[in-house]
Order: sequence, then structure tokens, then C-alpha cells
Amino acid sequence: MDKILRINMSGSSGPEIKTEPLGPYAGLGGRAMTSTVVAKEVPPTCHALGADNKLVIAPGLLSGSAAAMSGRISVGCKSPLTGGIKEANSGGQPSQMIARLGYAAIILEGAPKDDTLYKVMINKDGATIKPDNSLKMLGNYDLVDKIKAEFGEKVSCISIGQAGEMKLGAASVAFTDMEQRPTRHAGRGGVGAVMGSKGIKVIVIDDAGTAMRPPKDPEKFKAANKEFVAGLRKHPVTGQGLPTYGTNVLTNVVNEAGAYPTRNFKTGQFEGAAKISGEAQAELENSRGGEGSATHGCHRGCVIRCSGTFYDKNGRFVTKQPEYETVWAHGGNCGIDDLDAIARIDRMDDDFGLDTIEMGATIAVAMDAGLAKFGDAEGAIRLLEEVGKGTPLGRILGSGAAVTGRVFGIERVPVVKGQSMPAYDPRAVKGMGVTYATTTMGADHTAGYAVTANLLGVGGSVDPLSPKGQIELSRNLQIATAAIDATGMCLFIAFAILDQPETFQSLIDLINGFTGANLTADDVTALGKTILKQERNFNAAAGFTKAHDRLPDYLLKEALPPHNVTFDVSDKELDEVFNF
Amino acid sequence: MDKILRINMSGSSGPEIKTEPLGPYAGLGGRAMTSTVVAKEVPPTCHALGADNKLVIAPGLLSGSAAAMSGRISVGCKSPLTGGIKEANSGGQPSQMIARLGYAAIILEGAPKDDTLYKVMINKDGATIKPDNSLKMLGNYDLVDKIKAEFGEKVSCISIGQAGEMKLGAASVAFTDMEQRPTRHAGRGGVGAVMGSKGIKVIVIDDAGTAMRPPKDPEKFKAANKEFVAGLRKHPVTGQGLPTYGTNVLTNVVNEAGAYPTRNFKTGQFEGAAKISGEAQAELENSRGGEGSATHGCHRGCVIRCSGTFYDKNGRFVTKQPEYETVWAHGGNCGIDDLDAIARIDRMDDDFGLDTIEMGATIAVAMDAGLAKFGDAEGAIRLLEEVGKGTPLGRILGSGAAVTGRVFGIERVPVVKGQSMPAYDPRAVKGMGVTYATTTMGADHTAGYAVTANLLGVGGSVDPLSPKGQIELSRNLQIATAAIDATGMCLFIAFAILDQPETFQSLIDLINGFTGANLTADDVTALGKTILKQERNFNAAAGFTKAHDRLPDYLLKEALPPHNVTFDVSDKELDEVFNF
Repeated sequence: MDKILRINMSGSSGPEIKTEPLGPYAGLGGRAMTSTVVAKEVPPTCHALGADNKLVIAPGLLSGSAAAMSGRISVGCKSPLTGGIKEANSGGQPSQMIARLGYAAIILEGAPKDDTLYKVMINKDGATIKPDNSLKMLGNYDLVDKIKAEFGEKVSCISIGQAGEMKLGAASVAFTDMEQRPTRHAGRGGVGAVMGSKGIKVIVIDDAGTAMRPPKDPEKFKAANKEFVAGLRKHPVTGQGLPTYGTNVLTNVVNEAGAYPTRNFKTGQFEGAAKISGEAQAELENSRGGEGSATHGCHRGCVIRCSGTFYDKNGRFVTKQPEYETVWAHGGNCGIDDLDAIARIDRMDDDFGLDTIEMGATIAVAMDAGLAKFGDAEGAIRLLEEVGKGTPLGRILGSGAAVTGRVFGIERVPVVKGQSMPAYDPRAVKGMGVTYATTTMGADHTAGYAVTANLLGVGGSVDPLSPKGQIELSRNLQIATAAIDATGMCLFIAFAILDQPETFQSLIDLINGFTGANLTADDVTALGKTILKQERNFNAAAGFTKAHDRLPDYLLKEALPPHNVTFDVSDKELDEVFNF
Repeated sequence: MDKILRINMSGSSGPEIKTEPLGPYAGLGGRAMTSTVVAKEVPPTCHALGADNKLVIAPGLLSGSAAAMSGRISVGCKSPLTGGIKEANSGGQPSQMIARLGYAAIILEGAPKDDTLYKVMINKDGATIKPDNSLKMLGNYDLVDKIKAEFGEKVSCISIGQAGEMKLGAASVAFTDMEQRPTRHAGRGGVGAVMGSKGIKVIVIDDAGTAMRPPKDPEKFKAANKEFVAGLRKHPVTGQGLPTYGTNVLTNVVNEAGAYPTRNFKTGQFEGAAKISGEAQAELENSRGGEGSATHGCHRGCVIRCSGTFYDKNGRFVTKQPEYETVWAHGGNCGIDDLDAIARIDRMDDDFGLDTIEMGATIAVAMDAGLAKFGDAEGAIRLLEEVGKGTPLGRILGSGAAVTGRVFGIERVPVVKGQSMPAYDPRAVKGMGVTYATTTMGADHTAGYAVTANLLGVGGSVDPLSPKGQIELSRNLQIATAAIDATGMCLFIAFAILDQPETFQSLIDLINGFTGANLTADDVTALGKTILKQERNFNAAAGFTKAHDRLPDYLLKEALPPHNVTFDVSDKELDEVFNF
């Protein structure tokens, strides 16, 4: 990873490709890379779909190595959804492959002269870009089939569906998984719209002829990796909960805690939760044969394997095993308790290239606007079909919950900085509410996952219903998360490293063994703070103030059953999160 | 004007009406009243369509008196279009009538429990409110007919059309004119959506049995009024240009200056300008008989009379004489050069209750998105019909240009703070650009009308193409405008008072003669500053920063023919406008 691939769509005689040395970006990976490039190169007040915005795709610091869990990738830009800085994170195969090819980042910049659609091909000999209008308005599944027919079964793809081409605010960037299906997405913040605005439909990656990235200190690295994997296997969440039921193990947990946002955040418990829980999902998947539940990682090198495959009742592939947030978004939040319907919707989201969280939140707002009834799965599917077709209604919905709320005059819209809240009601998991309000990303659970200490007893225990202790909890998690997002590590390692000091140490040893550095725990914290400060500064220059670090009004006034709690962390406390 | 009428839609057993003394609001009128009430009573971060927002309707300080030109009315709230404070100003009859009834403000607050629609009736005996669902989704014209059938020909109406009921961002509040037609609108910022969110369709005003408000010093008042009117008659703009051709006299002027935004702000001259100019309009109107051009004031007491009536070729009433900004919005900005089509569209805007500026800007953005061709008047009419019907496409368009741009992925959207720019290209009338960028209102020509010194040689002369001198020009005009907007005076008096010191003095004498105060010119300036500071503070608390005091990116990069100028007033200079 000693170079950067820069693709300038504004070149005088068409797109121009350059390979550059790392320069000021040496030593950065993942979110540290994307946020630094965006902060340094993108004018904060630019139009997110204009020539001045850049899409930065960066493997983690350890991606492409033998380090377990290191295959996550970051996608950064100014977000067309929030208007602030964005890092959206994804699994899939490209991270490892791009890293093996030696690229620390791919930067898409400028703007194409016309509406020609391009494909980029990257292999050991370098990168090329070609117009290919035959790809226009293909869904991600058809697109990947076409690419495989052209380039073979071993390439991976980074692509957009119809939503990205239409530059919609909920558009994702898709990454192919180990089966070369476009099931892994950098979903949040409309990163797919920015890729669409650059006129690039797909980046095809072929790592044939490359080798795994070698560690600087092979002995130390190998030992640390062993200890690290053992730590993950030992912890009940990463060793047992996630592998057995997948992320959807959370449905029953969050529902029992009364924090499961139901029917557009009206109540905290869903009577149909048991029917769409991880346990029910595993039973269903296992009963349908195939590989069954929780048998897959989202990328090569994963040892938790919280994913799986969803087949229909006739044994035909539908989609990857839908994640907890997806099941919630299209399930409880829309009053839907049918796993088959949820899987179909998940498949549609992946195909059109849409963020499942944003779309579930949006459809629930649309249900409040009377466009379908809560619980009406076929109604939800009809609404989503509109997005794929690009009808006016579809474009509204594909622009996300905030725009949908505006267009239909709905006040109860669960967004922060224009981005939809995920599957944890901030009134009943208050640490999560603090993260939603204050993260640089717009409402985002992954930015500081306070569910750990609030509900799971991981990394300590903080009463989820009390405002006490939530600021510190969220602050520490946001700092740690920013650092983890720089490594290419899956965020789920946090469960083990929060609870097991020796596993945290093994992660640091792993980084040091690989890079030859001598980082301490304090250095990791400092890295996280540096990333966050950089992001906050970008957002401030883009026009964000503490008024944007707030939850929507109604969550402060409307009590959430069954605990009948409102969000009561004070504004003053919220303003203390970034006190470093 | 010694009391406030407060209508609380959140009352436990339905809407509650209270009449209150002025308290802290004594001595305030128009924009000074609306902005003070909003700043004092509305939480800046509240949802604009929620129970915490308030709609404040306030006659000017001199409204209801014999002072010439004093019948303008202010409508204030937190704007659903900009997210900031809003004062939208209108002519029509209600200002004089409300003032004669003794109300310094009508405040609509709270939120109705359900979707029942209400009508409010105000007369000398007080105010009442009644549900009336028979009014649902009536256009303003049908509504006013129904109200006249019920209450007689002498009442006036403040109402919303379908757009306000749908809570769309471009929804206006309509005020009936001297012929009791709903042709006068507080158009900007979505004030109609806020009225819709309160569930109030119409406020019916009957001033029977009331008298003109008497001045404190009748002699002084009478003499000052005479001098004031003489001053207006003497000035070439208010005495000649406006009365002869109406506001549309500006089409040829602005077009010749190369500052006429054509086809979504792509060029500064429109080849069809002569066909839709004030001169052409006057000729057409006069040829069709009726009262002809420029024979009407927008309210009783107007001595400029820049308005008229537009009849179709068969002599049937279509609409009031469309104003310059309306002719531009639906004309040159959409490449349309047909006055009959523009008049039909103006009628539709008035009927649905939509801001003509916002809708013209929006349709041009929609044309850039391929929804109709520039110059296609029937296409524009079809698009507008969608708004009236409330289809998804109509709701997008009715939400304004910013939302339309987002939904269709268009970068070139001429808005500031989410509100569309009016009929003066900021690149070629740079003082106007400074006002667009920095006013508290979102892009708004009336907030500091630098066309005066930039193009008309009124109040001095500042080169419109140079960045020099524009900051001071805009600052002074913004301050003066805020003060004028407090008086109930028509803003067009500014032409005369800027050029003729004795006319300015007569205005001050008029105020002093009426109120018994001893204001000086400095006091007027101080009032303007106080209003602006209050508005800036509200916006800052709502989350606005200097990053929001900017024009869209593309206007800084894309040169405007024929002068090939960009907007080159620096950010640093823009930040100096509010240096007081």
C-alpha cells in the first residue's frame, strides 16, 4: 500500500488516471485515510454532487495482510445526505484485493462532461477506464453478472445500482462478497450518489499475481494474531452470540429492553419481534438447507462469521442473511413480521444500491404519510419498486427519510443531520442517543455503539434509561471506533477488546508487528481523537454547529412505551462530548 | 392596535382563542412584531411544522391609518423552507382591516389534534373559530367565493390553498385584494405550510363598524402625509415608471444590463424579453380593455398604483397584472415568452397558494432535470397542475427548488438557505448577490434591494459588475428595509426616500405625527439594526453560520454571458455585512 490511484473525470480529453506516491497520506488507512483526504482536498461548502467533491475508497491499515478481521473498507466524501463529512464502512472482498494491489486509496474526483457511464479496471498492471453505456441503469446483481462474464469469476466489484446513477441520497456503494455477489454495502450517507456523480458505474478489481502483504516483524505478528483470534473466540458475543445467530441475535435483546423502535419510532416493543428474531431466522435458514445460518464472514479472513445465506422456501438464493438493522428497518419499524418479505426487500435494496437503514426509516415515514399501512409488506415492496424505476415517488423515497418527511409534510422524522436513526431508540438506549446526536456522521449506530454498556454489559454497565454516564460512554466509544475504522478491522472486535485487556493488547501487537511501529494504547486513542477532530472541523466549516448535534424535537417530548421515557440528556451535556 | 389575538390549536378541548394586551410587544408593527414574537416565543431548533412553531400575522405600525402606502402586512414564523426565521410581506386588504379592529398581531400556535380544518372569523365583536371540513383542498379562488357567499362581499380573507394544506415548502399565505380576489401573497419561505400545520384554512376579517386609526398629532400627520405623497409623485420611479408599466418595467432594464437570469440562470439576457416586458404587457392589457395596465394599488391607500388586471383575449379575468418577478420566474427563467401563458401560471400559483418566485425557479430546475423543455409553456403548466393535485411529482415541485434539485440529483440549483433566488442574477448585480447571501431570509430581493444603486441610479451609483462597494450598499439597504417593513409601508417608497431627503423626513414626520413619538433618522436605523440582530440571533441558534451566508458554488465558477462575470465578492467581505 505505497501508492494512491487518482481518477480525474474532468480531464480535458476525458478521464485521467494517475498513480501517485502516498505523500502526506503515508501511514493512513481506512477512515483515517478517507477523512484526511476529504478534509484536505474537498472544500467543505462545495456541492456534494459537484466536481469539487471526491469519493475516497480506502482499505484499512491491515487490509491485505494475514491479520484476522482486517478486510473492512472505508468510503469517504462530503455526504449528499448530511452535507457533512462521511465515512461509510463495508465488508466484501475488495479491501483485501486493493491492498494486495498496493493501493492505499482510490480517489474519484472531478466531474464527467456528459452522461457517459464508465467502468474502471484495476489489476497488477495498473488501472484503466472505459466508457460502457451498456451498463446504464443495471441493478447491482445484473451488473456483476455482466462483469463476471467479461472478466471471469475471480474479480471483485465496487459498484452502484440505479439509485447511485440517479444520485439519490440513500444510494450505497456495493462491494462483492466471497461468493461475488453484491451483498456488502457502504450504505450510509449517499456515497453511491457521489460515485454516480462521477459517472463511474463499477470498479473491477483483479488481484491475480499479487501476494499477501508481509508483516515487518513476522514472529510478533503471527503470535499476536493467534492471541487476537483466541480472544475473539473466547468472548461470549464474538465467540458465541454472533456466530450462532448473526447480528439479528439483537432483535430479542433490544425488544426486551423496550428499545426496539417500532412503527416509525412510536413504541419500544414490537409484538412480532419473535417472528423475525435471529433465533427464528436461524431456524428458518437451517430448515431450508443450504449452508444454514451464521456460516459466512463478510470478507476473507473473518473468524467471527456472523453472516449466512437466505434461501426462499424453494431453496433459491434470495440474499445474504439480513443483518439486525436491516431486519429492524424493514421489519419492526414498518410493523412487518415476515422474514421472507424482509429478505426480498433486502435483496431489492442491494440490487438498486440503497442503504437498508435509510430505506426502512423512509418507508416508515411514508407509512405515516399514508402511502402504505404499517405491516403491509407488499405495500413496502411496491414503494421500493418505485425507487428502482425512478418514478417521482421513487426518487422521493430514495432521497431518504428527511426529504420524504419534507415532501409529505411529516413532522415525526427520526433523523440527525439528515440521516436516519438505526435500530435503537435513543430514548431507551440513551448512550446511543448521544452518539446519534453528536457523531460527525449523522445518526449512526456504528460511530459509537453504546449498546455495549447500555444493554449488553460489555465494557462496563451504564443504565440505558438514565441520562447519567452516557456522555463519557459515547465519547470513549466514538474515539475507539474512529481508530478501529482506520485499521480495516471489523467493528465487532470491540466486544472482545473492551472486555479483555489481553485481546486489546494483542490488537496493538498485531499493528506493531505488521507496521514495525511501537504504538501504545494511548497512541490508538490519540489516532481516534485526531480523526474525529478533523471530521468536526470539516463539518464546522461546512456550516454545522451545536444546533445540529441534537435529536429531533419530538423525541424530547414524546414518551416511548413501555418505559415511557423521553430523551433527557441535556443540550449542555451533549456539547461536552467533544471536549478533547 | 392595543391587543394581540392568540389562537392556540393545542387547547385541551379544541382550539382556544385569547385576546391579550400587547405587553412586551407594545409599539411594534409588521416585521418588528413578527420577528420579535418569533425570536421570543419559538424555539429556534423546533420543527417548523410542529406545535412549537408559531405563525404571526402583523399589520404595520401605520396600517389602518390614513397614511399613504401603509397597508402592507407581515407574516412571520420559523420557515419550513429555510429552517431560519421568516418574514414574508404582502399587500391586500387585511392589514388595514386588522389594524382598524385593534389587533397588532394574530398569533397561530400549537397543533391541532387531528386533520380537521378550521376557519377563523374576526369582527368588531371579537374572534371565533369553527371546524369546516367542506373547505378541504379548495383553491384560494373557490375558497374566497365560498366565504363571500357565507359572509358577504365586504369581508377580506387570509387563506391557504392546496399547497398550504399539504404543508409544502413553497406554500404561500393569500390575502384578498381590493376586489376581494386572493391575488396578494406572503409568498416566501413556506409560511402557508405553517398555517396549514395549524389546521387553519382561512381567517375571515370583517371591519364593519370600525374607524380609521386616529393620529396622535393630526396636524403634523396630515402635513407629513401630503409632503410624503408629493415626494412619491415627484420621483421618476414611483411617480412614473411603476405607475405606467408596473413592476414589470424592470424586464427590459435588467435584461439590457445582462443580469436577467435566463433558463435556470445560464445566461443574463433573454431573447424573448421584449415580448414579456412591462411595455408589452401594458400594451396587451390596454388593448384588451377593462381597466388596463397599472391602475391598481395592492391595498387601499396606495398612491403609486403599480398593479393592474390581466384579462384573456376574450376579456375574461385571469389574474392581477403579474409582477416583474413572476413574469421572470415563469417567463425568462423557463425560456417562456408568452404573457398569456405566464398569466395563467400566475393564476394557478395564486389559486394553489404558491410562491411564484419559488415555483418559477423550481420549474427551471425541473427543466434542467428533463421534466419539460425550456420554452415549453404547456409543459410548465402541466408540471404546476401536478402540484395542485398533490401527486408525488407535484409535492416535490411544491417543496421548492432545493428539494427538487436533491430529488433529481441536479447541482445547479439557485438557492441560498434553501430559498430560490429571484429575478436578478447575482453575478451581474453583485449588490443583490450580497443580499441573497447574507440576509436572514434566504435568497430574497426585497431584503436589501441593491438594484437601486446597481442598475437604477437610485440612492447613488455602484457598478453592478464590480465587487466594490456592494457590502456597504447591501448592509445599508438591509437595515433600512427592516425598518420600513416594520411600518406597514410598501417597500417601493424606498426609491423616493433614498433620493429625496425631504421625502425621508416626511416619512419620519408621518410616524411621529401618528404615534406622538420623536424619532430621528438615527432611530429608524437603530430599529432596522435591532430587527436584523434579533433575526441573526435566531438563525444562529437554529444552526446557521457564515457557511450559510454563501451563494451556491457554481455561481463563483460559471461565468454569466454576456458580461462573462462570476460572483467575486469574497467570503471575508460577505462576513462583514453584519458588522454592527
